[in-house]
Amino acid sequence: MRLAYQHVKGLISMARISPAPIKGARDFLPRDLAPRNRVFQLMRDTFERYGYEPLETPAIEHSSALEGKYGEEGERLLFRILKNGRDLESAARELVSRGDDAALSAGAIARGFSEMALRYDLTVPMARVIAARQNDILMPFRRYQMQPVWRGDRPQRGRYREFYQCDVDCVGSRAMAVDAEMVAIHHEVFTRLGFQQSVTQVSHRGLLDALMEASGVAPEQRVGARVAIDKFDKIGAEGVREELRRAGLDDRSADALLEAVSVSGAPLDTLEALRPLVRQTEQGEASIAELGEVFDAIRAMGVPQERYELRLSMVRGSDYYTGVIYETVVPGSGLGTLGAGGRYDKLVGMFLGRDVPAVGISFGVDRIFVAMEEAGLLAGGAITTTQALVTLFSAETMSASFALAQALRAAGVNTEVYTEPKGLGPQLAFASKKGIPLAFVIGPDEAARGEVSLRDLRTREQVAIPQAAAAAQALARLAEKRAGG
Amino acid sequence: MRLAYQHVKGLISMARISPAPIKGARDFLPRDLAPRNRVFQLMRDTFERYGYEPLETPAIEHSSALEGKYGEEGERLLFRILKNGRDLESAARELVSRGDDAALSAGAIARGFSEMALRYDLTVPMARVIAARQNDILMPFRRYQMQPVWRGDRPQRGRYREFYQCDVDCVGSRAMAVDAEMVAIHHEVFTRLGFQQSVTQVSHRGLLDALMEASGVAPEQRVGARVAIDKFDKIGAEGVREELRRAGLDDRSADALLEAVSVSGAPLDTLEALRPLVRQTEQGEASIAELGEVFDAIRAMGVPQERYELRLSMVRGSDYYTGVIYETVVPGSGLGTLGAGGRYDKLVGMFLGRDVPAVGISFGVDRIFVAMEEAGLLAGGAITTTQALVTLFSAETMSASFALAQALRAAGVNTEVYTEPKGLGPQLAFASKKGIPLAFVIGPDEAARGEVSLRDLRTREQVAIPQAAAAAQALARLAEKRAGG
Repeated sequence: MRLAYQHVKGLISMARISPAPIKGARDFLPRDLAPRNRVFQLMRDTFERYGYEPLETPAIEHSSALEGKYGEEGERLLFRILKNGRDLESAARELVSRGDDAALSAGAIARGFSEMALRYDLTVPMARVIAARQNDILMPFRRYQMQPVWRGDRPQRGRYREFYQCDVDCVGSRAMAVDAEMVAIHHEVFTRLGFQQSVTQVSHRGLLDALMEASGVAPEQRVGARVAIDKFDKIGAEGVREELRRAGLDDRSADALLEAVSVSGAPLDTLEALRPLVRQTEQGEASIAELGEVFDAIRAMGVPQERYELRLSMVRGSDYYTGVIYETVVPGSGLGTLGAGGRYDKLVGMFLGRDVPAVGISFGVDRIFVAMEEAGLLAGGAITTTQALVTLFSAETMSASFALAQALRAAGVNTEVYTEPKGLGPQLAFASKKGIPLAFVIGPDEAARGEVSLRDLRTREQVAIPQAAAAAQALARLAEKRAGG
Repeated sequence: MRLAYQHVKGLISMARISPAPIKGARDFLPRDLAPRNRVFQLMRDTFERYGYEPLETPAIEHSSALEGKYGEEGERLLFRILKNGRDLESAARELVSRGDDAALSAGAIARGFSEMALRYDLTVPMARVIAARQNDILMPFRRYQMQPVWRGDRPQRGRYREFYQCDVDCVGSRAMAVDAEMVAIHHEVFTRLGFQQSVTQVSHRGLLDALMEASGVAPEQRVGARVAIDKFDKIGAEGVREELRRAGLDDRSADALLEAVSVSGAPLDTLEALRPLVRQTEQGEASIAELGEVFDAIRAMGVPQERYELRLSMVRGSDYYTGVIYETVVPGSGLGTLGAGGRYDKLVGMFLGRDVPAVGISFGVDRIFVAMEEAGLLAGGAITTTQALVTLFSAETMSASFALAQALRAAGVNTEVYTEPKGLGPQLAFASKKGIPLAFVIGPDEAARGEVSLRDLRTREQVAIPQAAAAAQALARLAEKRAGG
């Protein structure tokens, strides 16, 4: 609101500037935000229900805090902030005075012309805050963070350059109960969102490593083997066998590994079946013990057994997981992973210079929306926060309309008064188009009788009621509809 | 969570990077966010109660959408995004190949090296969206927007480079009822926040202009005269008279204008008293009629008369207001304006190429927090969203702890389970330090009896209760405390 109007006046008549948002970013209109905010609120409620507290960090970080964390590819995608004023001018003068090829590479220019960038994820800022505020943050620290991040990816369908991440992490504890809690939170979020079929797959990086070791997979073949196994659901056992061979595994190793990752059944039974396969290696035994603890705790937390499973072919892409990992899918939806995470004990301490154990999950908000849409879980929900329109007939009945609106608001009904007297038709059409469920019509006749006509725009039903009963009637109708649909 | 761990490993042992946030931006820990989110939620609720719907726009805008809107000073403060990859390299090559003084000014470099910038306010993005989505947005459009904005100001106490703006606007109506609604919303927000003394001052740009005209103030003296009058509260009538003279007004004009803006009393009476002073100019009569409508509507909306006033010495800095203006202050707080706005019929249409009437207010969130702190309105509120801690005694009682926590959560109590077995003292100290009000202690004795010890950490009271009664007891204690404090 601090616009300099004198600079704007001229614009009205000037050539129009394209009003589209930048590529890869979105404007969210009220009808987009109504379902979106419901989902966000449900997630927030669930996280807080488990004792996770909110954390927020700035959009802009020092480049030095972000560089070296995301690999070459990630670093190229950082949105960097251009220096300002004299700093910018001296960067430019230096560039001009050098002007050689080395100075003219995008990387060198970025370093010279910028020292801040937009955050790329929420994990690095969390690690930074934990280092900055050691005296203010009690460990174990359960926090969630739902904020936008920015990545200069080529925009494409379903991939954005500005999008929300939604992370839940517990920092400072090695307890397996926290890993179990992540599975319980997954289960609760997806159940409350309406997914009756979601399954959280659980595995362990150490167990997979032990199985590879026991199967005779050489250390340098492991990254390739993991990539191959990760495709199990897509390309099947034969496809994976082929890829394992291409990764350099001999037939015997490939068969042994494939057999191991294909073991299935009730989690605790499956662990027992795997025990001989890890041949008493320390890492194998420890991983099996950890998973046993996790599954015990998951059961104690009341997660139904059909909602989680041990699946060793689930691998997770990132390199930084150090223990139990999990991924939630909706089988048959073809949508891939809707939420995922794991234990990563080596990462949070990066600003502290020492290891800090941590467990975390991310929810893929945009993909969850697509899944909900496809499953019909967004249908029938309100598309506006507004619950009632009070019509405006004339200057004479205005006071009656305002008084009625205030009574509705005081009772908790979100109420809009049409802005100026107009025919009833356009006012009701306005309410219908916006998706407002109820309209209260006060003309001079109604006003004289102390009445109001309540029109349910969903059923087109209309009844005349005393004005004093308006709020109670509105609440009853809104509650009824919620219960019914 | 998409970190490339191989790139991070080396960091653990490398020299530490400063973990402080950038200057002028803030990390919000849970204890900061607890009160902050309560205030935000209350504002959101109030805006929605009046039929205003949420809108969200991207942080990054095309520079062309922002340039020319904020004046030279504002433009210098834009955070610009550095171009990327080849675009960046060719900008650099062009700079090197020219290399003259004109090319080396900050403005020219900014234009060459950047084509996007972070949003500077929420009004321009709203105007852009209204132009982009004309078919999806019904007029009149009531929207609110609470998002961060970025300004490269020199950071100083209470002034940030990344801060939230909180705007409420109604676009597409010339009705004075909407101006009145803004005053009602001001009143409701500040009352619900706990300010029992807030006063919304109301004035009208056209009325002030008419009074200046009638007092013989020349058009070129008006900006200076407005600036002088705006200082009335700070420097008093004599100070203003001095400044008016310095602005070029003769004694007679200065006296007449001072007399006019000093008229006070009940708003509608005051308007009558001003009527002769505007000498039947069209603008004067129209403004008085508009203000009359506004005050009628404010009264009809039930705003208590001590919470608003007509005050002609309230001027508002910005140039773009075209009608009624308002400002809310807490008299005696010395904090200045906590919320302000007005009618601005010429601005929203900037991307459309035609005028679109609009009314809007901004709430100064950061200043409101300071005011609440000083007025003691934040004291005693929860500093964590977590309501209960369940302790963990041993591996044997773990299941009992988890089951109890799930029962509490199912009843709506935000419950954290301590992550691993530990002495009771440290677990209770952890809960106390975090500000968690309740702790449930389950040792083997309690577990065997089907009981749990409920400890109220606020009163240090402790009672043994059946586990089945835990949720009901927790809810009762939490409600009690809320009602009491």
